[in-house]
Amino acid sequence: MTTVVKPSPRERLLKAAATLTYRDGVGIGVEALCKAAGVSKRSMYQLFESKDELLAASLTERAAAYVAALLPAADDGRSPRERVLYVFAQVESQSAEPEFRGCPYLAVQIELKDQDHPASQVAHRIKADLTAFFHAEAEQGGASDPGLLARQLSLVFDGASARAGIGADSMAGLIAPTVTALLDAAGMR
Amino acid sequence: MTTVVKPSPRERLLKAAATLTYRDGVGIGVEALCKAAGVSKRSMYQLFESKDELLAASLTERAAAYVAALLPAADDGRSPRERVLYVFAQVESQSAEPEFRGCPYLAVQIELKDQDHPASQVAHRIKADLTAFFHAEAEQGGASDPGLLARQLSLVFDGASARAGIGADSMAGLIAPTVTALLDAAGMR
Repeated sequence: MTTVVKPSPRERLLKAAATLTYRDGVGIGVEALCKAAGVSKRSMYQLFESKDELLAASLTERAAAYVAALLPAADDGRSPRERVLYVFAQVESQSAEPEFRGCPYLAVQIELKDQDHPASQVAHRIKADLTAFFHAEAEQGGASDPGLLARQLSLVFDGASARAGIGADSMAGLIAPTVTALLDAAGMR
Repeated sequence: MTTVVKPSPRERLLKAAATLTYRDGVGIGVEALCKAAGVSKRSMYQLFESKDELLAASLTERAAAYVAALLPAADDGRSPRERVLYVFAQVESQSAEPEFRGCPYLAVQIELKDQDHPASQVAHRIKADLTAFFHAEAEQGGASDPGLLARQLSLVFDGASARAGIGADSMAGLIAPTVTALLDAAGMR
């Protein structure tokens, strides 16, 4: 006999918040979130102080999976240059999914406007970790200005994600040559 | 005697929609818009079919001024390369203003999610015009792949605007070297 463990109300709320916010925006109502999660509003407010706290928790919850899907394994034997290109190949492949709407952590910060919002702060930290990864690889790969290259790679990541997310462009034939040109300009190995 | 012409209710609504949407997001309520414009809801609905139509009209209304502030004059004697760099110098200088929150036309599309929304369609057209400008200059400047360079420049414009808009980075010391590296890689004069 197989035992199926039903996700807890907390887990269902976190999943609904992540999915619906990504699809519909941060303006999604508490009613819609609770309905999608199959949880009463009363239960929601017993688990989370506010919708803002639920949103922040859902972003935190998803961060580990998000990072694992993007970054190469530590010490995988690739060169720093290949490790950077790996990240962009991953996001390019994600962007081909029909439900892709850009980087969720960038979108939340643009939509909330308020950078002191708890969810903005979570999103800001997760994005800063990606820039830190680029910075470490740029140093390792002997880039002429690792700080500049890390900023450029973050810019390309966000710009390409945003444009693909709104359907203004796709990443195919765009993101790899752009990253390569910047790696070359920095003399990155 | 000086005669001060008071802006019409239509003009006041367009201005309020542009300003408040940029500052607070597309979720801003009709109530708040009418209050800021000093116009009754009844009058608003006599002038615009819906908030969505008001938003689309406000983006259209602002497009000419937005483009004029960014693009160089036609036939200004500069090289295509200098004309492209001019656009990025303009947006870099705009981004230093405290009220800067990124490109309004990108933000609207990210926030609305729905690319069939009338305001998304207006925003999409205005952004496509900027890409078309880059494309024409890239051709004029002998870029090896004008289509690719135009896409890259649009990506940099949006990525740098988004990141500066949320305070994740500034454009200083970032946007000019990034654009220069891509112009060089394309052999642009």
